Amino acid sequence: MTGNPRTEDAAPVRRIDHVAIAAHDADAAAQYYEGTLGMRRVRDEEVAGTGSRLVWLEPVGMPVGGARFQIVQPLRDGPVAEFLARRGEGLHHVCFAVDDAAAFLAARGEEGSALFTGGFGLPCAFLGSAPEGMAVEIVGPAPGA
Amino acid sequence: MTGNPRTEDAAPVRRIDHVAIAAHDADAAAQYYEGTLGMRRVRDEEVAGTGSRLVWLEPVGMPVGGARFQIVQPLRDGPVAEFLARRGEGLHHVCFAVDDAAAFLAARGEEGSALFTGGFGLPCAFLGSAPEGMAVEIVGPAPGA
Repeated sequence: MTGNPRTEDAAPVRRIDHVAIAAHDADAAAQYYEGTLGMRRVRDEEVAGTGSRLVWLEPVGMPVGGARFQIVQPLRDGPVAEFLARRGEGLHHVCFAVDDAAAFLAARGEEGSALFTGGFGLPCAFLGSAPEGMAVEIVGPAPGA
Repeated sequence: MTGNPRTEDAAPVRRIDHVAIAAHDADAAAQYYEGTLGMRRVRDEEVAGTGSRLVWLEPVGMPVGGARFQIVQPLRDGPVAEFLARRGEGLHHVCFAVDDAAAFLAARGEEGSALFTGGFGLPCAFLGSAPEGMAVEIVGPAPGA
């Protein structure tokens, strides 16, 4: 295995869209990243479908195509609350921008991975194929993808 | 706490440089990201100081300023091997590009966080101030930081 990518990939990932941490209280968690690291909060939203609150942070002057930082706070029982109970606060998932999440799932034979409306109102899915211990999300179409 | 960044921040983070997973075998772990996600391997190196192997992956055509994906494989006992024994394979740390890692540590009163030579031969440090459960690294100066 030399790791060469497929030469004609119909649905590649384009960039890392964001990396997310899970936290019991997004405001408390954000203090470190806003205060010590000097990032700014660019969005604070509730995603009804997943029952979570998302706080989005960016480095000031982040380049176009840069990855955002997300804090996920569960608002009800579900996978994120279970993650927190099992592992505590910390890194939760990485999300890759793709041209079209539905087309990506079809091209990869991942129709079993459910599409949902995530942060910024964009189509997302967590990949059922992800290795054990990893949560891998895709998002798209997204601005700048 | 409204989350406003300091207006005059002498040493802000500039962008997310990379997100890293820890794995027992970087080649085995890379198969998913190269194969299913279509990323390409751009570097495979041993970092003597930390006793680890780093495999770096990028989305094909990643934008300038985009975040890379890193797989850390421990080559000897140490923090990464301990992480794997305790938590298993999965997300390990997030790294932010800064203008100058040493200056960042001084500006934040983090002189206790040890500078070391990391991937790409660049100056890095893990922040001792990071919240419990989080590993936060800085790197810089770095190309494109």
